[in-house]
Amino acid sequence: MEHNLDNTLALLDRTPAALDALLRGLPEVFTHANEGSGTWSAFDILGHLIHCEKTDWLPRAKIILTHGDTRPFDPFDRFGHVHGIQGKTLPMLLDEFALIRAQNLDELRSMRLTPEQLALRGLHPAFGPVTLSELLAAWAAHDANHLHQLSRVIAHQYRDLVGPWSKYEGVMHCTAHSAPG
Amino acid sequence: MEHNLDNTLALLDRTPAALDALLRGLPEVFTHANEGSGTWSAFDILGHLIHCEKTDWLPRAKIILTHGDTRPFDPFDRFGHVHGIQGKTLPMLLDEFALIRAQNLDELRSMRLTPEQLALRGLHPAFGPVTLSELLAAWAAHDANHLHQLSRVIAHQYRDLVGPWSKYEGVMHCTAHSAPG
Repeated sequence: MEHNLDNTLALLDRTPAALDALLRGLPEVFTHANEGSGTWSAFDILGHLIHCEKTDWLPRAKIILTHGDTRPFDPFDRFGHVHGIQGKTLPMLLDEFALIRAQNLDELRSMRLTPEQLALRGLHPAFGPVTLSELLAAWAAHDANHLHQLSRVIAHQYRDLVGPWSKYEGVMHCTAHSAPG
Repeated sequence: MEHNLDNTLALLDRTPAALDALLRGLPEVFTHANEGSGTWSAFDILGHLIHCEKTDWLPRAKIILTHGDTRPFDPFDRFGHVHGIQGKTLPMLLDEFALIRAQNLDELRSMRLTPEQLALRGLHPAFGPVTLSELLAAWAAHDANHLHQLSRVIAHQYRDLVGPWSKYEGVMHCTAHSAPG
């Protein structure tokens, strides 16, 4: 299908409330557990999403609008959130994510991007040429990616508790781990 | 870890609100699209979750409490939701799921299950012996399983819109489809 920016905004709008409904007040045995060494917990994922709001999607959109493909995006730091989440609680991260996402979407809406602007090209430091449209679609897909990861992290905590069901719950056999985007 | 029923209830409690936050008002291009022939949309998934509340988890728990493993569970109809969702809207299914889940959790809480009861064995028609504890843990893991599927279904709609990001978003490479549980 064609990229419809209103649809992408509809997805991006809903993620903070969905994560809030899922995670606020949930025991730490779920929110702070991961899938093993080097993997992320729900807490880490929230930190990463906040870091992306600050340094990835909207900042990169602005680079495209200002510089086109004459200047590559700044490389994304996949561990950039580690410092920012230290000493914080999960409710603090949920509030922070909701606030910065809302601010960023307000700013995106205020740009009133035209089809011509959405077709503008930028330069990803790893992937090469991308369009503004692809970048904004990837922002929404990235939310789905981490919701996918988050549901897997939660299910992982139950892998030894569900007996024979572990064979039949697809989420317990997902190997679709993510690379930095 | 040991199965903690309060933790399982915490997960089961949150799913309706999380799905509501994610899906209510979302364009049908996301809620009614699937991953191809024979796969489920968000709308179908909601119908399935409602059907499970009616015929799977709590009814099976009651069979264990009443009959132990002397009587197998009734087989689950993976297509049992098809009739029930006809003519309904997504908001109707969200409301229906929230209501029946709340009723079922009220009933589960009112049972005040003891560790001895959680260790009782039942007979799954396909898997064989299972415990009540495993069944209730699987109920929560099954929510995570379908949240995992749902995020993948949404991301699937964007696979051609994100350009080179499609290679890097794990959710677009997930092959962990589910079997009936």
